[in-house]
Amino acid sequence: MLRIGIFGGGQLAQMLTQAALGLGLETAIFERSPDSPAGRLTQHEFVGPWDDAAALRRFAQCCDLVTLENEFVDAQILAQLEHMGMPVFPTAATVGVVQDKCTQKQRIAAAGLAVPPFRAVATPAEVLAAGTAFGWPLVLKARRNGYDGYGNATLRSPDELDAAWQRLAARGSPLLVEAWVPFVRELALMVVRGRDGALAAYPLVETVQREHICHIVRTPATLPPAAAEAATTLACSAIEAIEGVGVFGIELFELADGRILFNELAPRPHNSGHYTIEGCVTSQFENHLRAILGWPLGATDLRAPAVVMVNLLGQRNGPVAPDALRAALAIPGAHLHLYGKRESRLGRKMGHVTALGQGLAEAEEVALRAAALVEV
Amino acid sequence: MLRIGIFGGGQLAQMLTQAALGLGLETAIFERSPDSPAGRLTQHEFVGPWDDAAALRRFAQCCDLVTLENEFVDAQILAQLEHMGMPVFPTAATVGVVQDKCTQKQRIAAAGLAVPPFRAVATPAEVLAAGTAFGWPLVLKARRNGYDGYGNATLRSPDELDAAWQRLAARGSPLLVEAWVPFVRELALMVVRGRDGALAAYPLVETVQREHICHIVRTPATLPPAAAEAATTLACSAIEAIEGVGVFGIELFELADGRILFNELAPRPHNSGHYTIEGCVTSQFENHLRAILGWPLGATDLRAPAVVMVNLLGQRNGPVAPDALRAALAIPGAHLHLYGKRESRLGRKMGHVTALGQGLAEAEEVALRAAALVEV
Repeated sequence: MLRIGIFGGGQLAQMLTQAALGLGLETAIFERSPDSPAGRLTQHEFVGPWDDAAALRRFAQCCDLVTLENEFVDAQILAQLEHMGMPVFPTAATVGVVQDKCTQKQRIAAAGLAVPPFRAVATPAEVLAAGTAFGWPLVLKARRNGYDGYGNATLRSPDELDAAWQRLAARGSPLLVEAWVPFVRELALMVVRGRDGALAAYPLVETVQREHICHIVRTPATLPPAAAEAATTLACSAIEAIEGVGVFGIELFELADGRILFNELAPRPHNSGHYTIEGCVTSQFENHLRAILGWPLGATDLRAPAVVMVNLLGQRNGPVAPDALRAALAIPGAHLHLYGKRESRLGRKMGHVTALGQGLAEAEEVALRAAALVEV
Repeated sequence: MLRIGIFGGGQLAQMLTQAALGLGLETAIFERSPDSPAGRLTQHEFVGPWDDAAALRRFAQCCDLVTLENEFVDAQILAQLEHMGMPVFPTAATVGVVQDKCTQKQRIAAAGLAVPPFRAVATPAEVLAAGTAFGWPLVLKARRNGYDGYGNATLRSPDELDAAWQRLAARGSPLLVEAWVPFVRELALMVVRGRDGALAAYPLVETVQREHICHIVRTPATLPPAAAEAATTLACSAIEAIEGVGVFGIELFELADGRILFNELAPRPHNSGHYTIEGCVTSQFENHLRAILGWPLGATDLRAPAVVMVNLLGQRNGPVAPDALRAALAIPGAHLHLYGKRESRLGRKMGHVTALGQGLAEAEEVALRAAALVEV
């Protein structure tokens, strides 16, 4: 049996493990803390900092191929594995470009794809200069290690710069600024690319954020076919531009005039693709594994006219009750997923619920009704 | 988190584990040998004979609730756990009745359900007497521990008795005989029953055996509605008769005149229900967990007009190639499942493939085409 090593042991690694089982694959998990949702599912659990050379070597000896569930693994660590002869997908080169939001956007822009104005900034003065160039508001971002709004600040005017600079610079990553985009909707899609360059795109979805965290994903996004095709082409081109292998989540902005702009991408399974577990013929997790193994990609077709996913976000701080799902399970057609996190925190992603239907409104009603009954 | 203890670590326990993850449950596995498909998926793996009192106590201390993936666990062991205060579902009483095929049939017959003539036999002379009473052929069976045709013999005439008696009596279980049933088709269905007595039936399926091993499962079975309803009612009544809690597989005979007879049942997820993973709103594995936890049962509706499952049976003896699935993954719409068994053996259940379609012929063509490409 092939053993797939995964950097990270959270819910994405857990759902990768679920998909791996059916393909006859084993997993090994390297996570910074013990008892992670995916670490619990293997007897090959490695615990410690990812830059621990001895642990890294043991991990490598245990695996046939390495992948990741988040983009926070330093690409240099992936490069070390590649130097040892280990296949790593996505590659160290891809992750290196993507894990810095500035080099990521540079690569996408260089491929001729539509990206909002952005630039790296080393000082507050450079932010002010960007404001003059791009206009206000501006979005100030950590180039590395940001997620779910951590590491982002929207500056409505120069007055808000100092506080935001203090907060973000303290995270230890260099920063970039982007023009604020007056989008009408946020869209996303998953693209999977094989080791042979074969590409398959999932349907375009609409994502609804709540306080910078994904709240609802509606599939398919209701767009004119030409616009949906343009968005899909843009996303596929972006993955080709970074020579991606595996599954990638691409986030897009839709403007009032119908134009689509690239926002950012993640080199891994993505929250906006969780609906694919029940909603598509092949889930994003299974397709990620097929892609990185060099196996044929699976069909990405929808299995129902409409699919809606709602995140289950922590409503309080404290341990999760063992029967947190119980009441929600009574809603017919709601597919419930808990991630096995022992502690809830306000706003933490604790699980999700997916519902299929003949139309978006029907599916969303079921998903929201079930989500409201989950106690996390 | 609740931890569900499972007796047995094979593919049924593996697929139960897959379902358990999404419900926020952990598993502990008690199997007779190490490195079982489900034992590998937990750090709570107990290895040894199930009647090892010390191991049983450690297993119990580790679990919140105990279930099983096969009916070969002696009901007295389950009763010991119940005496320790552990919830066990299905209960020791249910498993005790079911794991002996003679007491199982007695209970079903006593409930007024249609069962072929049968009787316990202690000597070859009693088999001959049964032949006189029921006519020939006769089916001679081990009362306990039979599966996939191991433990069964069809006797076309008294001449075949001696060899069959030698072979079956050597297995150490008492025997029973049944009248041979001139069935036109074998049918099956899964029924799930909650701790509160709530019942839900899955669709009636047609099963095609090859050398006593399940080969193809076609859903739904093409039966007149009244006959399908009668079969479903019979199956539900059978589970009520044994006071079953959890999911049960019920095998039935369809006669030329349309009558339906009870054949036998299994107190656990069943091969004839694997199609429910992709084919139904709630899989048999998820519904088993919901039922034994006392949680609401999930919808059992089909997700497509037709679903066909084909077993992947070992074609040779030897280790499984890591890319055994690769060629089959190129068939669009084929859902492939390998069970993670390291060694193949001729006829061993190594995995299965499921395909959905608008009609049975279409789905079966896809499933068979994919199955033919798997190298196990």
